[in-house]
Amino acid sequence: MNPVYIEIDGFDGNARAARLFTPHGIIKTPVFMPVGTNACVKALTPQDTKETGAEIMLANTYHLYLRPGHDLIKKFGGIHRFMGWDRPVLTDSGGYQVFSLAKLRKITENGVIFQSHIDGSSHNFTPENAISIQNALGADIIMCFDECTGFPVTRKEAEESADLTALWARRCMDAHQGNNQALFGIVQGSIYPDIRQKSLEQITSIDFPGYAMGGLAIGEPKEQTYKIINKILHCLPFDRPRYIMGMGSPVDLVEGVFNGADMFDCVMPTRNARNGQFFTDNGRINIKNARYFNDEMPIDENCQCYTCRNFTRAYLRHLFVLKEILFYRLATIHNLYYYINLMKRIRTAIINNKMADFRKQFLDKWR
Amino acid sequence: MNPVYIEIDGFDGNARAARLFTPHGIIKTPVFMPVGTNACVKALTPQDTKETGAEIMLANTYHLYLRPGHDLIKKFGGIHRFMGWDRPVLTDSGGYQVFSLAKLRKITENGVIFQSHIDGSSHNFTPENAISIQNALGADIIMCFDECTGFPVTRKEAEESADLTALWARRCMDAHQGNNQALFGIVQGSIYPDIRQKSLEQITSIDFPGYAMGGLAIGEPKEQTYKIINKILHCLPFDRPRYIMGMGSPVDLVEGVFNGADMFDCVMPTRNARNGQFFTDNGRINIKNARYFNDEMPIDENCQCYTCRNFTRAYLRHLFVLKEILFYRLATIHNLYYYINLMKRIRTAIINNKMADFRKQFLDKWR
Repeated sequence: MNPVYIEIDGFDGNARAARLFTPHGIIKTPVFMPVGTNACVKALTPQDTKETGAEIMLANTYHLYLRPGHDLIKKFGGIHRFMGWDRPVLTDSGGYQVFSLAKLRKITENGVIFQSHIDGSSHNFTPENAISIQNALGADIIMCFDECTGFPVTRKEAEESADLTALWARRCMDAHQGNNQALFGIVQGSIYPDIRQKSLEQITSIDFPGYAMGGLAIGEPKEQTYKIINKILHCLPFDRPRYIMGMGSPVDLVEGVFNGADMFDCVMPTRNARNGQFFTDNGRINIKNARYFNDEMPIDENCQCYTCRNFTRAYLRHLFVLKEILFYRLATIHNLYYYINLMKRIRTAIINNKMADFRKQFLDKWR
Repeated sequence: MNPVYIEIDGFDGNARAARLFTPHGIIKTPVFMPVGTNACVKALTPQDTKETGAEIMLANTYHLYLRPGHDLIKKFGGIHRFMGWDRPVLTDSGGYQVFSLAKLRKITENGVIFQSHIDGSSHNFTPENAISIQNALGADIIMCFDECTGFPVTRKEAEESADLTALWARRCMDAHQGNNQALFGIVQGSIYPDIRQKSLEQITSIDFPGYAMGGLAIGEPKEQTYKIINKILHCLPFDRPRYIMGMGSPVDLVEGVFNGADMFDCVMPTRNARNGQFFTDNGRINIKNARYFNDEMPIDENCQCYTCRNFTRAYLRHLFVLKEILFYRLATIHNLYYYINLMKRIRTAIINNKMADFRKQFLDKWR
C-alpha cells in the first residue's frame, strides 16, 4: 500500500473533500500547506504553526540541500525532528528554485548544472539525486524533479520541456527508495491546454500516489491559469490527491478547489504578512495606512486567531512602522489562520453541497 | 500609602530578597526587567515574555513619546492595555535616550531641547512634561527626569549635572499626578564617590517610594562601576526599592544584588540574543561558531526554557545563519529565561544565607 492515499468524504461538482493519509497523520483536504522554506515557517515556531490550524508544512529541497545540507538533516533523524514538527511534511524537488533562483543554469537531458544563488558554487541536480536528497530529508510527500519553464514560452519550448519532465518523472520513480515517502508526479505544459493534456497523459501513465500541476502562477494572466485548471484538473485520476503547486491567493484557492484540487502551497500569506498586508473576507488590509493609527479594532473582528484575539490594528501598525520583529509573527499567524480557516469553510461547503454558492459569495466579496 | 512598596523577606550582608507590591501585582526581588523599548520586548509576545518568568517590563518614554505618542497610548487605556501586558511596567523618563540618541541637544535649567533621532523634528523635555508623559503612559513605576552625563566627565561637570538632577527631581515630584504610579528618584554623580554621596543625600531628602542609580554602565571601567555600587548602594534607604538602571551582564547582576540592589534592566540579554549570543552558567555561546553546525545538544542541557526544551544548537545555528526571524525569538526566550532564572537562584541564595558562596561560585565559573 502507498504510504500516502486519500479517501473521499464528499464532492460537489469537481470539488472534493477528502482525508489524506500520511505516515505523520491524517490531513483533511482541501488543504493549504504553509511554506517553511528553510525548515521553518518564517517567524513561527512549530507550535505557532500548529495553532493556525496547519496540518502539513512544505519545505524547499533546493534551500535545504544548500544549507544546512540533506546529510545533516538525515543525521538528525529527518526534517521533522530537525525542525521540531511532528505533522506531515512535503518537500518540493528543487526544480522550481533551480529555474527561478540559481545562476548560470545548464540544462541537459541528464539534469541541471547550476550555481548556488548564495555563493556561486557549482551543483548538479538530476532526477536521481533530487530524489535521493528528498529521501534523506525524509518528508512524507516528495516531488518529481521537473523542468519548470518560465512565462512566456513558445509552444515548442513548452512541449519539449513537458517531454523532458515526463522522461525525468520515470527516472524519479525508478530512483525512489523506501516505503515511507510518497512520490508525486508533476504535469507541465505551460498555458497550452493540448500540451498540458499530453503531459498529463505522460505523467499519469506512471502510477504515482499523487499528481501535481506545476508551472502555474508564474506570471501568466489569471484567466489563463484558470483556463488550464478548468480544462485539465478534472482529468487527473479521481482516486489520487491533486496538488496545484505554488498558486495561492484566496481567490486562487477557491477556484482551484472548485475545479478539483486538493492541495495548495504559496508564500503569499506569509510573505504578504511580512509586508504589512493582512487577508480578510472583505479584502486586504495594508496596516501601514494612516487610517489605522488609532484604530481600536482587531484586524478582523470575526477572526479567532491569536493576533485578532489579542491586539488592535493600532498596535499592529505601531509594530509594523517600527519594524518590530514581533509584527512579522503576529501578521503571519493571522494570514495563515485565515488561509487555513478558508480551507475549512470550503470543505464544509463541499460536504454540504454548497460549493457553488460559497464560491459566488466569496468572489462577490473579493472582487 | 504609596502605590509601590517593598516588604523584605530576607537579607544576607547587603543583599536583600523582597516582594515589591505594585498596582499590577507583586514582584519578587531581586528582579530583572526585560526592556520593551517600543511597548514590546523585541521578538516576543506578552505571553512569551511571561513564559520566561518575567514579572515586570520596562518601556522607554522617549521612544513611545515619539512613536506612537503618549496621547494614543492614553486613549487606549494606558501602556498595559496598548501592548496586552497585564503585569507591572516601569517607564524610564527619557533622560538617558535624550542624551544618547537625540541630536542637537540644548540643556538649560528648564529642561532639554532636542531633535528626534527619527526625523530631526524639535522637541522639549522638562521635568514637568517628562512626568506628564509618563502619567499618560500609565506605568506602575515612573522615573524622574535626570541629566545623564556621558563618560568620561570632569568632577565639575559631574557635580553640576548631579545638582541639576536634584533640582529636577524636586520639580518631578511636584509635577507628578495621580495615586496609581510610583515616582522613583535617580542618583547621579558619575564615578566620583563623593559626588554620588552628595547626590544620594539630595535625592533621598525627597521622599520617593524608590531610588535608582543612574549613569552607570555607560562606558566606564567595570572596577569603577563596582566601586560606586559598593560604596553608595547600601546608603540608600533600607525600606525602599533600589534600582540600578541599564546595568546588566550576569556578573553585574550578581555584583549588584550582592551590594544591595533589588531591580535591574538591560538590553544585553535581548540584544545579544539577536546577535547570536546565548548566556549560560558556563559563559556565552556564539551560535555562529562552526563547531555547532552538527551539535545535537540544546543550548544548555540544564535549562528548562522553551528553546532548550525543543531545539538543538545545530537547528538554532541554521536559523541564525539564514537570518530566520524565528531565531531572534528563540534566542531572546533563552536569554531572558536565563536572566530571570538567575535572579530566582540569587533570591534563594539570599534567603538561605548563601549569597557569598553563590557569588564566589558564579564568578569562578564566569571569569
